[in-house]
Amino acid sequence: MQYHRDGFRSGDPRRHPATRVAGEDRDETDVLIVGGGPAGLLLSAYLSQFSDLTTCLVEKSRGPLELGRADGVACRTVETFASFGLAGRLIDEAYWVNETAFWHPDADDRERIVRTGLVQDVEDGLSEFPHVIVNQARIQDLLLGFMDNSPTRLTPTYGVEFSSLTIDRARTHPVEAVLRDADSGETRTVRAKYLVGADGARSAVRRAIGLSLHGEAAGHAWGVMDMLAVTDFPDIRRKAAIQSATHGSILLIPREGGYLVRLYVDLGVVDDENRAAVRRTTPEQIIEIARDVIRPYSLDIREIVWSSIYEVAQRTADAFDDAGTDLANGIDPRVFIVGDACHTHSAKAGQGMNVSMQDAFNLGWKLSGTLLGRTAPAILRTYSQERQPVAQELIDFDRSWSQLMAQAPADPDHPERGGVDHATLQDHFVRAGRYTAGLGIEYPPGPLIAGATSPTAARGYPPGQRFHSAPVTRVSDGLRTELGHVHLADGRWRLFLFADSDRRLFDQACAWLAEAPESPVLRHTPADADIDAVIDVRGIVQDHHRDVAPSDVPALLRPRTGRLGLVDEEKLFSAISRQAGTPDRDIFDDRDIDRSRGAVVLVRPDQYVAAVVAVDQVTTLTEFFGTFMSQPGPQPGPSHTVSAGGPERVS
Amino acid sequence: MQYHRDGFRSGDPRRHPATRVAGEDRDETDVLIVGGGPAGLLLSAYLSQFSDLTTCLVEKSRGPLELGRADGVACRTVETFASFGLAGRLIDEAYWVNETAFWHPDADDRERIVRTGLVQDVEDGLSEFPHVIVNQARIQDLLLGFMDNSPTRLTPTYGVEFSSLTIDRARTHPVEAVLRDADSGETRTVRAKYLVGADGARSAVRRAIGLSLHGEAAGHAWGVMDMLAVTDFPDIRRKAAIQSATHGSILLIPREGGYLVRLYVDLGVVDDENRAAVRRTTPEQIIEIARDVIRPYSLDIREIVWSSIYEVAQRTADAFDDAGTDLANGIDPRVFIVGDACHTHSAKAGQGMNVSMQDAFNLGWKLSGTLLGRTAPAILRTYSQERQPVAQELIDFDRSWSQLMAQAPADPDHPERGGVDHATLQDHFVRAGRYTAGLGIEYPPGPLIAGATSPTAARGYPPGQRFHSAPVTRVSDGLRTELGHVHLADGRWRLFLFADSDRRLFDQACAWLAEAPESPVLRHTPADADIDAVIDVRGIVQDHHRDVAPSDVPALLRPRTGRLGLVDEEKLFSAISRQAGTPDRDIFDDRDIDRSRGAVVLVRPDQYVAAVVAVDQVTTLTEFFGTFMSQPGPQPGPSHTVSAGGPERVS
Repeated sequence: MQYHRDGFRSGDPRRHPATRVAGEDRDETDVLIVGGGPAGLLLSAYLSQFSDLTTCLVEKSRGPLELGRADGVACRTVETFASFGLAGRLIDEAYWVNETAFWHPDADDRERIVRTGLVQDVEDGLSEFPHVIVNQARIQDLLLGFMDNSPTRLTPTYGVEFSSLTIDRARTHPVEAVLRDADSGETRTVRAKYLVGADGARSAVRRAIGLSLHGEAAGHAWGVMDMLAVTDFPDIRRKAAIQSATHGSILLIPREGGYLVRLYVDLGVVDDENRAAVRRTTPEQIIEIARDVIRPYSLDIREIVWSSIYEVAQRTADAFDDAGTDLANGIDPRVFIVGDACHTHSAKAGQGMNVSMQDAFNLGWKLSGTLLGRTAPAILRTYSQERQPVAQELIDFDRSWSQLMAQAPADPDHPERGGVDHATLQDHFVRAGRYTAGLGIEYPPGPLIAGATSPTAARGYPPGQRFHSAPVTRVSDGLRTELGHVHLADGRWRLFLFADSDRRLFDQACAWLAEAPESPVLRHTPADADIDAVIDVRGIVQDHHRDVAPSDVPALLRPRTGRLGLVDEEKLFSAISRQAGTPDRDIFDDRDIDRSRGAVVLVRPDQYVAAVVAVDQVTTLTEFFGTFMSQPGPQPGPSHTVSAGGPERVS
Repeated sequence: MQYHRDGFRSGDPRRHPATRVAGEDRDETDVLIVGGGPAGLLLSAYLSQFSDLTTCLVEKSRGPLELGRADGVACRTVETFASFGLAGRLIDEAYWVNETAFWHPDADDRERIVRTGLVQDVEDGLSEFPHVIVNQARIQDLLLGFMDNSPTRLTPTYGVEFSSLTIDRARTHPVEAVLRDADSGETRTVRAKYLVGADGARSAVRRAIGLSLHGEAAGHAWGVMDMLAVTDFPDIRRKAAIQSATHGSILLIPREGGYLVRLYVDLGVVDDENRAAVRRTTPEQIIEIARDVIRPYSLDIREIVWSSIYEVAQRTADAFDDAGTDLANGIDPRVFIVGDACHTHSAKAGQGMNVSMQDAFNLGWKLSGTLLGRTAPAILRTYSQERQPVAQELIDFDRSWSQLMAQAPADPDHPERGGVDHATLQDHFVRAGRYTAGLGIEYPPGPLIAGATSPTAARGYPPGQRFHSAPVTRVSDGLRTELGHVHLADGRWRLFLFADSDRRLFDQACAWLAEAPESPVLRHTPADADIDAVIDVRGIVQDHHRDVAPSDVPALLRPRTGRLGLVDEEKLFSAISRQAGTPDRDIFDDRDIDRSRGAVVLVRPDQYVAAVVAVDQVTTLTEFFGTFMSQPGPQPGPSHTVSAGGPERVS
């Protein structure tokens, strides 16, 4: 955590000095966000960091969520929370999904269930963070806390609904939205540069821009219940997929705090005929089904914390903005939808809240970059372009997974009756692990993902996938740290320069980035900003950290920053990391990086790898950035102070 | 983190429901604490957890500390903060001391310094936590935050000084203290059962009970300065002990946030003749000395954050309470001193704040235990008995360390001139590592430390030393976790039962603890309390966690707890822990525990090992506890519900 850069400030470093009065009811705003669920709040948290932007968030409920709803937090979401500095608190209070158990009818007595499998939940090395479970309300609380600590002190305006909008692209604030007080029904008008509908599956924003969800006609219903219970079911503190012979299936999710448990009880397909009946399912009936499913084990419920019947179909919209699916129509989108407003599906794979927040994370940097004048508005098209296929993939995955879970278990004595055997189910689960961890996404080449020009430079960093962290050692102080954790959710690009073995190309690349007029770092950074304000360059050398002297460090990697011109000593890392009692690791091995030519791994503000080239090809980045970045004006030369150290420093 | 035990509660689980209105100005209190520095606040935080106790904390300054003072946080202090749930935030924002550099005059040009050594700061395996550096103000903020979240919402009363006290042991509240408003001078009287002076080196409480500091007559002065600076000194982000040939020495401490640095500049011995002059040393003079010392490197100061001249001598009081040094006089102490009120010494070894907080941690459970009726008042004598020798040892260590640091460096060309050679200094530093980490303390056998009756049962757990954590795997959910982290700062004892290989003795010991009338668990736990309310028993089996079924678990280790009688599933661990990419570990190997007979490791509420016996000797604990614990009344039998699981559970 870096702070005191512009001078010492007492108090919690997580709390920034306020630059704006909180709770202003603006008539005009840069961004209007409708809906304060996980997607709306993550986007709000992202935008709240920028003192130069105004954001307004309205939420129709009367206050923060207290319980219920989603609870699965995939590894990728924890990584994302780490970029907000929130991962520590999140995983500290959450349940960690270490193992998943599978239960099926006993072959000898099909009225009893037996455990047929127990698998590690997250494959080794997939992420440095665990898969965890915690109430959606706490996820939202953490984001609200971040917003409250931000320079803009952004807070949601509760009790306000979206009513309608009009768009006039000729205005400075093209979107005019009518909002309605949920109590009084009074309306007011807010003009925004951009409007984001994070208003859930029945999104009024989606309707207002003429989009609708397509997909399965029939829905599927679940009873879901959070409970405090006493049971002799052996896996009460493990995630468990339980399938009975004749009473259906349940998914059991242990929850945060050590006692709470969630059950998803499958209530089957819903159509117009049975819908009313299904919706009348009582908590008692849910419990009854659960008891039948987990026989011979007991279930003694001490407190029902929350329960709900919900019905979803696998559906998604064709586009996620008001510019439509034709990417060549030249229209810059002004209204977006994120989260459940874009896609609906079951809770079975634990993806809903996670994919929704990743929608927001994808949009956040594009919106802020465009509003801050860093990126061309055209990149806003890539939000729908990148995320719509993700939603499509999600509902396809969910459909196959739900069908598998909903099938009756195969009866070994009656193979002719069909059904799913437990080996198939378990195998499917393990293979799907990368996907359900939120790590299966690979954005195809496009304006923001360069085709790999040097695929062999860093095979562990395929363009389009999220940057996969690995441990390294910081040169200045010998700290073992995760390289990926330097990547905060602050709108900046990261350019990781993995050095060639003798650092010759590395030094040249640093010099070019710091001095060449066509360097993207110089081109796209305003003259009065820190050299790392837009593209944050980090170096990783193959040497042991003790073998690197400050005088070996290229000036770009010890830049002067902030009001006081202090030297940032946290830009350079050794590839080798040491942890007591374990073999040393080397990120060049971990991520298969070319030792002789090195590699440049360029990472987007949302932590996805944008380009990988050999170090001597760093100049190709000029063209890549040129297509979508603004140029604050060609720099006459290196106007930024990048020379480091005191007056006696000569190199 | 366990919560929702008594029913679901929304919001931050760290924030407990308030049981008492904050900020009451009581005339009568259980404990009156004078001084809100690290020791006073740690004690306040400890006591704030108990709804049945009243605590009043007065501090003479007008508000929370904002900057300056101490900054070194030893591993043991981080462990202690972990027991309050505060370690994550602490180490997240702190500087981690990974390496320490030593600089001495260059043999070729003694006006220049060169690096003569670079050592790992904390020995491998010493603690699971790092040695960190952070402003004392932030340490205090974290404790204040804990107090604000506690059920009693304890807050300091600022601007109030201690004036005088009288003791009348016949009263229910024997200590009558006169407090004075620091602004108006108005006085008020508070009656307390116990008073704790945490009021610093010039403690008025100490004087009031007739104690004084003894030790060195002459003091030693340092100039200390927190700064934001630009330098080409290569170890600006490493802790560095720098000794020049002729300009004296400095200790350089990198600080939190990546830019801040602290310098300690040695100003030499202070006596009556030079005292006035030394105290007039200006910040500019401190900087001048620092510049001379670090030649040929530059030091360009951009902001002086804080600076101070301070003078200390190595001194300690003979006793830390009002009962005196005669332990057999039968007097129960009513007034205590903690922290700097007990001992003064240099900042060189980074011990001050740490040892002070450990004073408070030692006293906290004894005070709360006595006030809650759990322990006999006689154990309060052990506070002074245990901590006074620690203070004595500290000042002895500090004296030798400071003398070493203050010596001129040896000149290899003039060995006849004496001085310290850098190999000696570095060697001393490394050997002192365990001590400076706060882990060198071993309380001798006494009322609260049993002589080891089975020293071979667990050689890695010498009685009198702090319980050294190691990783294990929780049986119920497969979580890899640190065993030591179950030990919260909540006033409870922990009884770790390391099982014999076939668990025969282990099962017997659990049954005895749960059922025998002489079981300390039954004897000392009130009948209406949870079975783990006073002594929290945890089991560690040698089996892999997947090989242990709930039906194998002794009822004592799946107890019913809380208002709802929920089963606590977090009592049993497997000795074997697995981490991807590293060899499996086994706590029986890590801590040298007898596999055939197992071991019982009894740990005091302050995390010090009280007793180690083989599992079949668990019955000897009856006598150990009997000497100092209260007995809520002999239990007629096992009145606590310890049977676990649902109605079908039979064992």
